[in-house]
Amino acid sequence: MRIATLGPKGTYSEKAVRQYDGKAEIVFCSTISEAIEAVKEEKADLAIVPTENSLLGSVDLTLDLLRNVKENNMYIAGEEIVRIKLCLLIKGDIKDVAMIYSKKEAFPQCRIYIKDNFPNVKIYEADSTAEAARYALLANSTAAIASCEAAQEYGLKIYAENIQDKKNNYTSFIIIGKKNSQPTGNDKTSFIVYPEGNWQGVYYEILGAIAKRGIDLTRVESRPTQEKLGEYVFYFDVKGHHLDPDLKIQDAIQAIKNMGHGVEVLGSYPAGQYKE
Amino acid sequence: MRIATLGPKGTYSEKAVRQYDGKAEIVFCSTISEAIEAVKEEKADLAIVPTENSLLGSVDLTLDLLRNVKENNMYIAGEEIVRIKLCLLIKGDIKDVAMIYSKKEAFPQCRIYIKDNFPNVKIYEADSTAEAARYALLANSTAAIASCEAAQEYGLKIYAENIQDKKNNYTSFIIIGKKNSQPTGNDKTSFIVYPEGNWQGVYYEILGAIAKRGIDLTRVESRPTQEKLGEYVFYFDVKGHHLDPDLKIQDAIQAIKNMGHGVEVLGSYPAGQYKE
Repeated sequence: MRIATLGPKGTYSEKAVRQYDGKAEIVFCSTISEAIEAVKEEKADLAIVPTENSLLGSVDLTLDLLRNVKENNMYIAGEEIVRIKLCLLIKGDIKDVAMIYSKKEAFPQCRIYIKDNFPNVKIYEADSTAEAARYALLANSTAAIASCEAAQEYGLKIYAENIQDKKNNYTSFIIIGKKNSQPTGNDKTSFIVYPEGNWQGVYYEILGAIAKRGIDLTRVESRPTQEKLGEYVFYFDVKGHHLDPDLKIQDAIQAIKNMGHGVEVLGSYPAGQYKE
Repeated sequence: MRIATLGPKGTYSEKAVRQYDGKAEIVFCSTISEAIEAVKEEKADLAIVPTENSLLGSVDLTLDLLRNVKENNMYIAGEEIVRIKLCLLIKGDIKDVAMIYSKKEAFPQCRIYIKDNFPNVKIYEADSTAEAARYALLANSTAAIASCEAAQEYGLKIYAENIQDKKNNYTSFIIIGKKNSQPTGNDKTSFIVYPEGNWQGVYYEILGAIAKRGIDLTRVESRPTQEKLGEYVFYFDVKGHHLDPDLKIQDAIQAIKNMGHGVEVLGSYPAGQYKE
């Protein structure tokens, strides 16, 4: 099994892949877009990309890219939830540290720790936490905020562990592939609604098609249509599989289509589980 | 009038301030958080910060910071919509350009232009478009994606104009101050709902309190509570002022409170207008 994800070695994306399939051959990519393309071009069987963090919310780029997966016969085939424990990694002495590198998402997660401990240290963005670890390896003046795994991978010291402001920090990754998953009894279905006409008058009605059938929402998101400020497409995650025998989800989607709106089912797949 | 916004000179934030009040004394800040703090600490009368872009969607940091404004007696007092025309600015000859700097939000907006014209040029993030323009001034090898105004401000040449993928590109800025605005007949109200208990069962009901009173939604957003993956607070922008004589908005908010949920009104203010 070849799985495309964000590299280099030592990223949380790699951790998500290992958690999903310990034996997978990993195809490291430099962007989320490239990882999804790898599946389209059959350079990988699956892609695993971040979709939501418990502190920072949705990964907008992933949501926007999902608008194109269906036309390439790709689906969301699963979900993997990864615990994020950010660490401060150094090569030499903490007194020499004048710069901290990390990926941009890590800094707002560690705002209080940085403010309290390194108020005068300069902050620089790297493409990933693993790339930041590589920089830390180059100079004693440079620390990295990265995973503990990256310390081991790059031979750095863990100066401080679990430094993010909120200790319960999880990222949800989605698995994208060319096969749909079968019902397991604990599934989720993701779909996008493209409202026909003015969304403001119909949003409540669209939600009604879901709520009135007793379907549980697990996530709602709006993203711009990119045509005009204030126009959106809507992303819904609901509990259940579109092939469940009660057909509730199929019914709800048909009801939304009957209202004249576009619906794109991104996939039904086993819901992710919390692991340590 | 002192207005705090993202600096340095030549940012779109500065443009938003000029558009709002041509005579304002501008207090340049380096982060959105610092601009809002400036109002809290009375170093500025107002802050003007970006809240949504027509291509990229919401500015999550602004949404998250809004959760703290009310306790400091601050409100959203207005909205300013600014047209974004990104330009490629250079100092010397285009043939010498090996690097492009811009703020991170600008690159996904110009993906096609960069791919088609500069596939091999390296991309670097600056804190703002104006900072990128400063870098372009330092070396012929460096170009900046910034506003046309920044070209004038920093004495750079405009190599290409309006280079973003979608030509209709607007950013909405909100104005934060210590005074509430009076009804004008064309207002918006922003409020946050903190659901009590499981949001999945009550989201439709909350929206019903708005929809059934004939109140038009103009924006819905969910942001993580930051406590647990899958738990959210909800941001709503609706048409109308909470002091409008029909009291529809006050009624709807009271109905949501009566369901047991927390509601925080961020402010009622004149809706932003499109300008060239």
